[in-house]
Amino acid sequence: ATNAGGLNVIRYGMARANVLGLEAVLADGTVISSMNRMLKNNSGYDLKQLFIGTEGTLGVVTRVVLALQEQPGSVSTALVAIEEGRHLATFLKHMDRALGGTLTAFEAMWQDYYRVNTAGLGRDPPLGRDHAYYVVVEGQGADPAADDARFTAAVEAALESGLIVDAVLPKSDAERERIWAIREHFQPDPGLRPFFSYDVSLPLRDILVYVEEVRGRLQLEWSTARLLVVGHFGDGNLHFIVSPGAAGSGDRAAMHAASDRCVYQPLQRHGGAISAEHGIGLEKKAWLPISRNAQEIELMQLLKRTLDPRNILNPGKVIDV
Amino acid sequence: ATNAGGLNVIRYGMARANVLGLEAVLADGTVISSMNRMLKNNSGYDLKQLFIGTEGTLGVVTRVVLALQEQPGSVSTALVAIEEGRHLATFLKHMDRALGGTLTAFEAMWQDYYRVNTAGLGRDPPLGRDHAYYVVVEGQGADPAADDARFTAAVEAALESGLIVDAVLPKSDAERERIWAIREHFQPDPGLRPFFSYDVSLPLRDILVYVEEVRGRLQLEWSTARLLVVGHFGDGNLHFIVSPGAAGSGDRAAMHAASDRCVYQPLQRHGGAISAEHGIGLEKKAWLPISRNAQEIELMQLLKRTLDPRNILNPGKVIDV
Repeated sequence: ATNAGGLNVIRYGMARANVLGLEAVLADGTVISSMNRMLKNNSGYDLKQLFIGTEGTLGVVTRVVLALQEQPGSVSTALVAIEEGRHLATFLKHMDRALGGTLTAFEAMWQDYYRVNTAGLGRDPPLGRDHAYYVVVEGQGADPAADDARFTAAVEAALESGLIVDAVLPKSDAERERIWAIREHFQPDPGLRPFFSYDVSLPLRDILVYVEEVRGRLQLEWSTARLLVVGHFGDGNLHFIVSPGAAGSGDRAAMHAASDRCVYQPLQRHGGAISAEHGIGLEKKAWLPISRNAQEIELMQLLKRTLDPRNILNPGKVIDV
Repeated sequence: ATNAGGLNVIRYGMARANVLGLEAVLADGTVISSMNRMLKNNSGYDLKQLFIGTEGTLGVVTRVVLALQEQPGSVSTALVAIEEGRHLATFLKHMDRALGGTLTAFEAMWQDYYRVNTAGLGRDPPLGRDHAYYVVVEGQGADPAADDARFTAAVEAALESGLIVDAVLPKSDAERERIWAIREHFQPDPGLRPFFSYDVSLPLRDILVYVEEVRGRLQLEWSTARLLVVGHFGDGNLHFIVSPGAAGSGDRAAMHAASDRCVYQPLQRHGGAISAEHGIGLEKKAWLPISRNAQEIELMQLLKRTLDPRNILNPGKVIDV
């Protein structure tokens, strides 16, 4: 119902791409059983799309047929450091091409995020804390020896060409987990509270300038504002952690609203999305016009009124009717 | 509008999986501009799904944003022979696992199809014509030397284990094209006319028994019936060419209707699709209840009536309203 994403969307797509069929219950109690099991089925309208990512507002999903993939037999990981923002996209393209379709993750951390999440390690982090950007890149294939050699050669080529300035390749699963923990386990320091989280996406080429636009707006709002940036760079999906810092004042709701303005208003001119993977719910409903135009919202409302005329399915979520 | 498929769906998905955004014109002239450029966007309903694969019945698609993929740097191909039908799916799984996500095509030909399409070659075909099944399997990766070695090793392992009984690996692009031509360029002999073509899909495990069910029904209909089977086996999608043969009598429409019955009626109990990739249009409309239940068809009709109340968009196609 939320078309969830995650760390491996770049390889496997979001939930929508992995759902073959489903069963849903409509507002009038009708059970729509579309339990398709085929990879290909163009026999009439693909009704499951009405229920994937619509957050329960058009029907209640009660069963799902998921497509399975062969489990990869190899995994190759690196944590790399990048100094110039423009190299993020170039390094992504380099690895995507070099790995020939086996790239499974490309996760970026801006410096502030890396510093916060390595502060409590109790040991030196895998890479120094003064680089501008960090990327966890991973490929999964079939043949550990050959895949590791290819992956390592691709990382070495990026080092030699200056795309990346440092890299560490884990030598064990435990080391791999420690690298992933830096990306995954957010460890906010006390000075960061309160903080507000975001889930935006935009075209790759606009990401760097957009982040600095947001940072500039936040600093105008609060001189001590902090912006931590992390995300699924390979998907164009960033997660922000925004904190007013010590200069933040006012109640939490007012601070949250100010933070929203700083993040969402500059997103519109980039054609970006206010939610890449977590959906709209109640919290982002007022901001939906940043990402969708009036005709789109009217068509959503028409679908909602048609399928749920008494507005009983997750009422008030996503759109008003 | 038809959610087209093709030879590489197993790797890249159908059109739906490759469309990021689109613009469509509704029946009342409203232009819905959903020109999303991101891989991830969960900001409200994914409206483009209304127009992908609905054959122009809910709107006219006027612009599309397509996702591009890195061009593969290597291609490895084999034509193999298989004697036992159950080995088709096992060989698919073997190659999918061995190639670690780089499998791009898995196309099967039953003996009769291979014979028809190699009859006019003017030379010996790449493999003898007495095998039960033939598969064109292809992987595309990044590194020609390493990928070819891995691909060849996977085919050799299948030979050694008896999954396949013969194989030929092209040594040039010209040889590769000759192999693909056997799969791609259907060359019906005069005795095959008239013939009727089909585009069904069903779960892999049911394919062999279903094909024989269809063959049995056709032989009851016409003692000289011929059934040529080819298709995107990796997607569970078969294309049939059905000919009444010399015993065929009656007008073409009556023969076509009899052929339809033989193909579609046994499909229902397998939960199969009467159209895997070519859509419903007019020709398959009467058979839609084989693949979709009454509740699904009513929901399709509700969408159609809501979005096109005057029935002016490709009227009469896919469903009646």
